[in-house]
Amino acid sequence: MGALRLPSLSLLRPTFSPLRRLPPHSVGRATTHSLAKEAEAVTAGDGKASVSPSQQENSVTPRSVDFSAWYLDVIANAELADYGPVRGTMVIRPYGYAIWEAIQDYLNVKFKETGHSNMYFPQFIPYSFIEKEASHVEGFSPELAVVTIGGGKELEEKLVVRPTSETIVNHMFTQWIHSYRDLPLMVNQWANVTRWEMRTKPFVRTLEFLWQEGHTAHATFEEAEKEALQMINIYKDFAYEHAAIPVITGRKSKVETFAGAACTYTIEAMMGDKRALQAGTSHNLGQNFSRAFGTQFMDENGYRQHVWQTSWAISTRFVGGIIMTHGDDTGLMLPPRIAPIQVVIVPIWKKSDERTSILEAVATVQNILKEAGIRVKVDDSEQRTPGWKYNFWEMKGVPLRIEIGPRDVTNKSVVVSRRDVPGKPGKEFGVSMEASTLVNHVKIRLEEIQAALLQRAISFRDSNIVDVNSYGELKEAIAEGKWARGPWSASDAEELKVKEETSATIRCFPFEQPEGEKKCFMTGKPAEEVAIFAKSY
Amino acid sequence: MGALRLPSLSLLRPTFSPLRRLPPHSVGRATTHSLAKEAEAVTAGDGKASVSPSQQENSVTPRSVDFSAWYLDVIANAELADYGPVRGTMVIRPYGYAIWEAIQDYLNVKFKETGHSNMYFPQFIPYSFIEKEASHVEGFSPELAVVTIGGGKELEEKLVVRPTSETIVNHMFTQWIHSYRDLPLMVNQWANVTRWEMRTKPFVRTLEFLWQEGHTAHATFEEAEKEALQMINIYKDFAYEHAAIPVITGRKSKVETFAGAACTYTIEAMMGDKRALQAGTSHNLGQNFSRAFGTQFMDENGYRQHVWQTSWAISTRFVGGIIMTHGDDTGLMLPPRIAPIQVVIVPIWKKSDERTSILEAVATVQNILKEAGIRVKVDDSEQRTPGWKYNFWEMKGVPLRIEIGPRDVTNKSVVVSRRDVPGKPGKEFGVSMEASTLVNHVKIRLEEIQAALLQRAISFRDSNIVDVNSYGELKEAIAEGKWARGPWSASDAEELKVKEETSATIRCFPFEQPEGEKKCFMTGKPAEEVAIFAKSY
Repeated sequence: MGALRLPSLSLLRPTFSPLRRLPPHSVGRATTHSLAKEAEAVTAGDGKASVSPSQQENSVTPRSVDFSAWYLDVIANAELADYGPVRGTMVIRPYGYAIWEAIQDYLNVKFKETGHSNMYFPQFIPYSFIEKEASHVEGFSPELAVVTIGGGKELEEKLVVRPTSETIVNHMFTQWIHSYRDLPLMVNQWANVTRWEMRTKPFVRTLEFLWQEGHTAHATFEEAEKEALQMINIYKDFAYEHAAIPVITGRKSKVETFAGAACTYTIEAMMGDKRALQAGTSHNLGQNFSRAFGTQFMDENGYRQHVWQTSWAISTRFVGGIIMTHGDDTGLMLPPRIAPIQVVIVPIWKKSDERTSILEAVATVQNILKEAGIRVKVDDSEQRTPGWKYNFWEMKGVPLRIEIGPRDVTNKSVVVSRRDVPGKPGKEFGVSMEASTLVNHVKIRLEEIQAALLQRAISFRDSNIVDVNSYGELKEAIAEGKWARGPWSASDAEELKVKEETSATIRCFPFEQPEGEKKCFMTGKPAEEVAIFAKSY
Repeated sequence: MGALRLPSLSLLRPTFSPLRRLPPHSVGRATTHSLAKEAEAVTAGDGKASVSPSQQENSVTPRSVDFSAWYLDVIANAELADYGPVRGTMVIRPYGYAIWEAIQDYLNVKFKETGHSNMYFPQFIPYSFIEKEASHVEGFSPELAVVTIGGGKELEEKLVVRPTSETIVNHMFTQWIHSYRDLPLMVNQWANVTRWEMRTKPFVRTLEFLWQEGHTAHATFEEAEKEALQMINIYKDFAYEHAAIPVITGRKSKVETFAGAACTYTIEAMMGDKRALQAGTSHNLGQNFSRAFGTQFMDENGYRQHVWQTSWAISTRFVGGIIMTHGDDTGLMLPPRIAPIQVVIVPIWKKSDERTSILEAVATVQNILKEAGIRVKVDDSEQRTPGWKYNFWEMKGVPLRIEIGPRDVTNKSVVVSRRDVPGKPGKEFGVSMEASTLVNHVKIRLEEIQAALLQRAISFRDSNIVDVNSYGELKEAIAEGKWARGPWSASDAEELKVKEETSATIRCFPFEQPEGEKKCFMTGKPAEEVAIFAKSY
């Protein structure tokens, strides 16, 4: 093994080469953006590890130059996902999937705590089911993938690959629900769904995606409403407290309501380019599906009634929301609570006789943190310089880095660097290796980072929402790329006109409303609520 | 609330009505086998809870009368699954899904411990991919579901809904693997897969099922072989230690090897009707897929080589294996380590003034067990008699039942009943409620049940495997419904002849082989190994 060089200044911001941006969708193309490729390039020749600055070029487009290109670069370089062979499909790579698992782990517990059971419905739905609820078929039929051949034969009835499961859920609920004693029925499934989207983007909108979909049936409208609100609040809490995304919670306009729902609640997040991302929804379905499918129960007085239902979902799109909320020109930045790796340890030595003692110290520190329940990774590969590793793990958004060099071993201390504070201000030297001191220090830093990311996102959000009192002001705000918030009581037609003229849609009527009388900024008539308009993903 | 009657003797084995057997597959039929239906029937009239023995009839076919009908009855009555609207599909109900989650929880940890990362590959595979590996297409093409319409348009290239993912995995591996330093690449995904099966059976063989599929790539044949063996051993350990299923581990014959594999390892389980169930497989794929897809790496000497691969899977079929290994005429019987509910507590009172103190004691016992990490459920519904509850939870296979009545409260004790030991011998009176005594008692009983189920299954298995030394002996053993084990070195054609004449196939060449010289029972020629023949699912 060759001795590794200490990072020089010129190496403090090297980047990866020959990483390429994710290429356009196509079948059969060869992608070679993996970092593995880089490994080959770097060690070619004498087989010794070395990173020459001249070999490096900045492959991550700056966010400010081209946000969309930046997003794809981060996904490629942080190894989050790759394109699948079929247009619009996505392979979720282990690091990206680990973020999804963190989302699952949190929500799965919350769902169970609130009385929901996991189960599984088949993904093939008879075509006739989709047609039963009028607005549902209107909303989903353009996006369907249809199986027409099974076992080598043309099928008598075509099968839809689920775009969502309300129809098949109601088909089954109708068989399981008979009496008020069977209610509430509250289930959830983690599953893949398919929507034949024309314009796709990794995580944000893909032909197939992963999600959870909750489905519940209740005896009364009020219970269903309470459930729908409970679930959007669980999503909101997750977004704020774990993903550090300060979503705005509210109700969708009629135009933007889920196809088949009576009412849709949403969490809307502001991405780094100020576009809105609908990050989770919860629907009060009313009796729309129960009437279409005859899902009835005998109430306590012996009358047959249709059940009241909800459905709610969060998907792998949320991973895209995390990338686009926190990432910077250095790459991904992960909130500690959902980071698959919270701390990466990088050993540094000049002379090979330092190696043993440093790796011993590294192992000790690793164990101390691991036993404290901190997700820690050691990067002791000998084919990379520390500088290369710094950049690699910054690209992957690991919240904290611990560096251990010869002087640190002597002093029984480590260097701790924060991902969210670049350069010297984010670096602390001489942090004691003593177990309780170190654990305490790391835990405090992780919580600080968690809070800092949320605070930064809140400031960004709040400085980019403009209160408007006329259509002109709205146009101006939207033209500046901002969100516009203003009183609204105009018609669906006027809402669609705004969309046509500005590309902005009503993201929601937020739950938090300003006090006082309001007049619709479009019509001048009294308005009960303000709405938030924005361009969205 | 009406006071509940104590169970009378006549209630100790009542069963459920009007539960019906799962009806034949069909679209749009109405199924009403849920226990909820029963609730209505029982409380009709005065609205008070009462179970009259005359309303009860045995809806579970005895295992000995019709094993297949018994299996379907248990699935329906224990609320494990239901048919989906599309022929051959299955809805996995919460209780059945919870068993699958127990399997996932165990294996997921083991997979990660052994260096595998979870990820996700798209389920739509270009038809051309399937055709690239000759034996793979031959094996899978009759079973494919094919998407031909997407977004309202006929697709240019038809898409296969994954029956397994080797092809798309290799397409991606080819992009990610370049150097020996990228190896081994070890991933896993939890996913749904589709195979257009003609003869389906809930859990055992369904059109869509859930599984995990591991995929790995290595630099050498030896490494791939080691991995394939490691994974089949993880499955074996899970089967023995958690599912209490004494599988036989071995190698498949060439005829029975996975389409595209060089070698398939399997765990074979003996069901209660003595049929074999292939419960998990691990394939050494050799270079078959890497050659078909050009998955190459540069070795340490600079030569390009094809990678050596494995894949391995366990599916929701395993849940069927658990039912058919341990269930009896009373219903499901779950090994404690994978039981979603390990202990059910049933309160018993005659007079309503006893109710409060009994429910207090129940809550105390529940908390004691919960805090000890035992999965406990209280059934305090007032619409059911204790007798009804006993039967219901026995049907659901809960390993231990705790009964708490007025005398128990006075004595600060409980009654503990084992699911696996019917009647008085399985019942212990006067078990102290004192926390540490009770926890200790319950833990010991659960471990005893776990061990007893495994021991019973081992005895059953061993008493139903016959050593044969001639084709006549094999025929006789198979005709008796048993497994036949004998030396085998005959041809594929002769193997197929056995199948045609006896319906038995080679389940595996077991890893555990008898010592000494062997002669093939078919040809009389020297044989290196014994094979196990059996009829299978």
